[in-house]
Amino acid sequence: MEKQAMYHQAYGKYAYPVGPDTLRVVLRTKKGDLQRVTVVYQDRYPGGPEYSKVMERSAQDEMFDYYQADLTLETARFAYMFWLDDGIEQIFMNEKGFFADPPENTEFQYPYIAPRDLWEPPAWSQGALVYQIFPERFANGDPNNDPADVEPWDALPTRESMKGGDLQGILEHLDHIVDLGVDVLYLTPIFVSPSNHKYNITDYYTVDPHFGDLDDCRALVEACHDKGIRVVFDAVFNHCGYEFFAFQDVLAHGRQSRYWDWFAIADTPITTDPPNYLTFARDIWTMPKLMTQNPEVREYLLGVAEYWIKECDIDGWRLDVANEVDHEFWREFRRRVKTLKPDALIVGEIWHEASEWVQGDQFDSVMNYPFRDAVCDWLGEDKIRAGTFAQRLAKVQMNHRQAVNLAMYNLFDSHDTARFLTLAGGDKAKLRLAAGLMLTYEGSPMVYYGDEVGMEGENDPDCRRGMIWDKRRQDRELLQWYQDLANLRRTRPVLRTGNCRTVMANGAANVFGFCRYDDQDQIVVLVNNSAHERQVPITDSFWPLGRPQSVRDLLTQDAWTDVIRLQPFSMAVVAERR
Amino acid sequence: MEKQAMYHQAYGKYAYPVGPDTLRVVLRTKKGDLQRVTVVYQDRYPGGPEYSKVMERSAQDEMFDYYQADLTLETARFAYMFWLDDGIEQIFMNEKGFFADPPENTEFQYPYIAPRDLWEPPAWSQGALVYQIFPERFANGDPNNDPADVEPWDALPTRESMKGGDLQGILEHLDHIVDLGVDVLYLTPIFVSPSNHKYNITDYYTVDPHFGDLDDCRALVEACHDKGIRVVFDAVFNHCGYEFFAFQDVLAHGRQSRYWDWFAIADTPITTDPPNYLTFARDIWTMPKLMTQNPEVREYLLGVAEYWIKECDIDGWRLDVANEVDHEFWREFRRRVKTLKPDALIVGEIWHEASEWVQGDQFDSVMNYPFRDAVCDWLGEDKIRAGTFAQRLAKVQMNHRQAVNLAMYNLFDSHDTARFLTLAGGDKAKLRLAAGLMLTYEGSPMVYYGDEVGMEGENDPDCRRGMIWDKRRQDRELLQWYQDLANLRRTRPVLRTGNCRTVMANGAANVFGFCRYDDQDQIVVLVNNSAHERQVPITDSFWPLGRPQSVRDLLTQDAWTDVIRLQPFSMAVVAERR
Repeated sequence: MEKQAMYHQAYGKYAYPVGPDTLRVVLRTKKGDLQRVTVVYQDRYPGGPEYSKVMERSAQDEMFDYYQADLTLETARFAYMFWLDDGIEQIFMNEKGFFADPPENTEFQYPYIAPRDLWEPPAWSQGALVYQIFPERFANGDPNNDPADVEPWDALPTRESMKGGDLQGILEHLDHIVDLGVDVLYLTPIFVSPSNHKYNITDYYTVDPHFGDLDDCRALVEACHDKGIRVVFDAVFNHCGYEFFAFQDVLAHGRQSRYWDWFAIADTPITTDPPNYLTFARDIWTMPKLMTQNPEVREYLLGVAEYWIKECDIDGWRLDVANEVDHEFWREFRRRVKTLKPDALIVGEIWHEASEWVQGDQFDSVMNYPFRDAVCDWLGEDKIRAGTFAQRLAKVQMNHRQAVNLAMYNLFDSHDTARFLTLAGGDKAKLRLAAGLMLTYEGSPMVYYGDEVGMEGENDPDCRRGMIWDKRRQDRELLQWYQDLANLRRTRPVLRTGNCRTVMANGAANVFGFCRYDDQDQIVVLVNNSAHERQVPITDSFWPLGRPQSVRDLLTQDAWTDVIRLQPFSMAVVAERR
Repeated sequence: MEKQAMYHQAYGKYAYPVGPDTLRVVLRTKKGDLQRVTVVYQDRYPGGPEYSKVMERSAQDEMFDYYQADLTLETARFAYMFWLDDGIEQIFMNEKGFFADPPENTEFQYPYIAPRDLWEPPAWSQGALVYQIFPERFANGDPNNDPADVEPWDALPTRESMKGGDLQGILEHLDHIVDLGVDVLYLTPIFVSPSNHKYNITDYYTVDPHFGDLDDCRALVEACHDKGIRVVFDAVFNHCGYEFFAFQDVLAHGRQSRYWDWFAIADTPITTDPPNYLTFARDIWTMPKLMTQNPEVREYLLGVAEYWIKECDIDGWRLDVANEVDHEFWREFRRRVKTLKPDALIVGEIWHEASEWVQGDQFDSVMNYPFRDAVCDWLGEDKIRAGTFAQRLAKVQMNHRQAVNLAMYNLFDSHDTARFLTLAGGDKAKLRLAAGLMLTYEGSPMVYYGDEVGMEGENDPDCRRGMIWDKRRQDRELLQWYQDLANLRRTRPVLRTGNCRTVMANGAANVFGFCRYDDQDQIVVLVNNSAHERQVPITDSFWPLGRPQSVRDLLTQDAWTDVIRLQPFSMAVVAERR
């Protein structure tokens, strides 16, 4: 038994409440090391009954098995130990170590499920389908507000291109969004800014005049709400634009400016090449970093967060460069936002391991770039095979509690990456698999505008091309695929909120499969990333609720009894045939 | 190489800022597995220089080695990997796994040291000597405020005993506390309550009349402050007393009471045997649990926390049953308390692994019961030997960042445990070792009233005897030992704030040794828990700043050159002979 590989802590992703008197515990062990894990538990105050439960092996990554169990105690005060069995040795693991006969009072303790610690991301966000729009490139609804020198819509963009996209354009194409089955619209920044991306904001309180005005903004949000679509804006609070009033004041008045301490400026005169003030990333002079340790800065930014909820009734914020702003700022942000709108969503942009931020006190969710990396490596570029892919997804999954996983912004491209289709060399079959996987997998899938009609693009600026509206240039079959998948997510809620377990990860066949299930429903998804037909037997182990007599593909209507036949580069989404 | 045993996360106790541009990283590995660990680091935005640093093996517990290094980057944005070498295999470990040739952008990331994330417990609390008083039993200064039927001071207490101790008594014996070298006075609750311990509070806003009044309280704090002693009160916010006004209102008016929701009551009539309402622990009807999810309850309790700081200028709060109150309550508590008094100390009562609460958003420190367990097991009851003792301390140490360790309330007894001297069968030599170890070890040692004069007592109620004031009955030699140790902590600040490394953990000899050191000073402490004289060679490895030519015991003045001779059950506190 490899004791040093065992990991548990009585908080965070290893122990969290899933109900007022139910605690989920997770134990990590060396892969393949154990035959059986039992959790023994009781009230933390002695004298009550003792219970035990065999733990389920819920995931497996490259190196570890993860066992989990849900423990219920009416008093919601837990003391527990794991009883480990590898077939040779049997031993307890508790807070103090490994014992055949544990000393008194050495259990792990989850002291109490206080009602306010029973936290989840907003229910509406779990499993929601998100559509990301880069407004300058989505649609030009009002040519009157175009910037000077707009380029032809379909010309390849440069970093400086202006094309004239605006809020009116989004409003006019809401049907496209509705037809796609979108639950949430996420807009990259729309506030006054000299750039096309608007991540260098001049005025946080005003819609960029090239995008529209406050009324347009309200109209768009209202129209979305009418269609049952929520709206998330982009909060750029790590830095502002060079033209931001406070930075301009500092440029004008130097140390005499009352805004001097809003920034970290080495000295006067203020220089830009290189900048002698802190900026976003490496010396990006157009983006001076904001000092959130300054209470005035905090108040200003928190006021912005509140303003757009109050004025436009938006449903959440996506936080740009979220991990370079202090944690306490985000805690205050959360309190202020949730006070105003308790079910508002807060999504951080973090490209790396982010579990620290999604514990209940800061974000509800983060953009799931590790998911993207795995999908691109497996389906997009064939760098890895199905076995490794499954392990990579499992690792991401075990980084977060389940409710967070359901709200994670799963994506395979964005305004900051090459588009998947381009990475995949234009192979539409691959894109269909990626979309099919993302739209059936655990999480909140985020579709980047244009993917659904087959748009291509290398990394910024090429991934920000003008949306293709000409139906003859749109891949309508692909669009139908997205619509069918989105429709399936609506008709079978298990795809939105169900559990998710890997059921197949065959590197040789290059087939990955998983099951979404809850108490009522179960759906198995199989993805064949090979140029060969694969026949997958419908084994008992695929079906947590019991193996159906025969199954039906929910997208193709193909029916199967013993074996599912997967065409090259195809997938199956199967459930009991009724 | 045992890869599954390696553990690192880019936050919490494994990665934390120790300066505005310095990050401490800690890597856990299987014990004895590696020969050398190097951390390779650079700015998280590519293009800057790459650095590397060999990590120091800073601790070793039963199963693991812990390596640490401090990384400095002017931009305070870190991307890093570990280069592991076990003599056979050399490989990188990063966020994504183990690689000979790591793919791009797979480093661990600590995105930015935001100034407000650079958190430490209050400087004054790090290494401070704390004296815990149970006021009903410390001294009866004013017989006029005695409860009815006080028992003789020296009679063994029962759970119901009243002896007449009060604030005036503490004030009158302040010299004793000052002479002991105390930095912080911690009082168990002093508010109106029918019990002797007062953990079932009737009125949070009033000093118990048997203890005195607000003026007495102010006078005591002021007198302490005059002597440079800080004062910490006890916040009992998990539950109140049965006589608390709100619970009385509920008893009187049932569901009509506006305080009904302050508690969790199953139904009317309200019963006490067993209670049909939530209580502290198992059915303790005198302590109804308070519902901190109720904003009125929160406001009431937070008002209490503020009141005593405003009215009496206390310096901190110790939080009773801290881990059964919700985390968000403690975050708000912290904000409110620190707003009023930025250097106030917040210490949680948590008997188990508590790292979740001391990350900067909740507590500054916790009562270190795992330290107590280790000291009692080794020195008090000889259940373990020096090797295991060292491992147990290392495990506790590695559970927290260093600044938290310096502020941990190390103790070996309290009002809730048997006294160490009693556990040790009355062996004063053992108590001297325990006190000597605690007062030289990393942390904030907490002396429970009376230990210093040799008081004994089994667990509650026996550990709450009347303080011995008769000098003929006090162990004056023991008191001198405590005073000498406290004096040493003052004259050699390295004992308060220095690093702490185990230098010897010899199970066979039953000798444990550690070094306290900083840039200027180093002191080695050796504890011989055996009935035999032990000769310990003064090896180079004891001395991080270089081995002195000869050393001197700072308490006994004995001088040693090559070997330190330790008498049976004795200790040495040695430093360079100057």
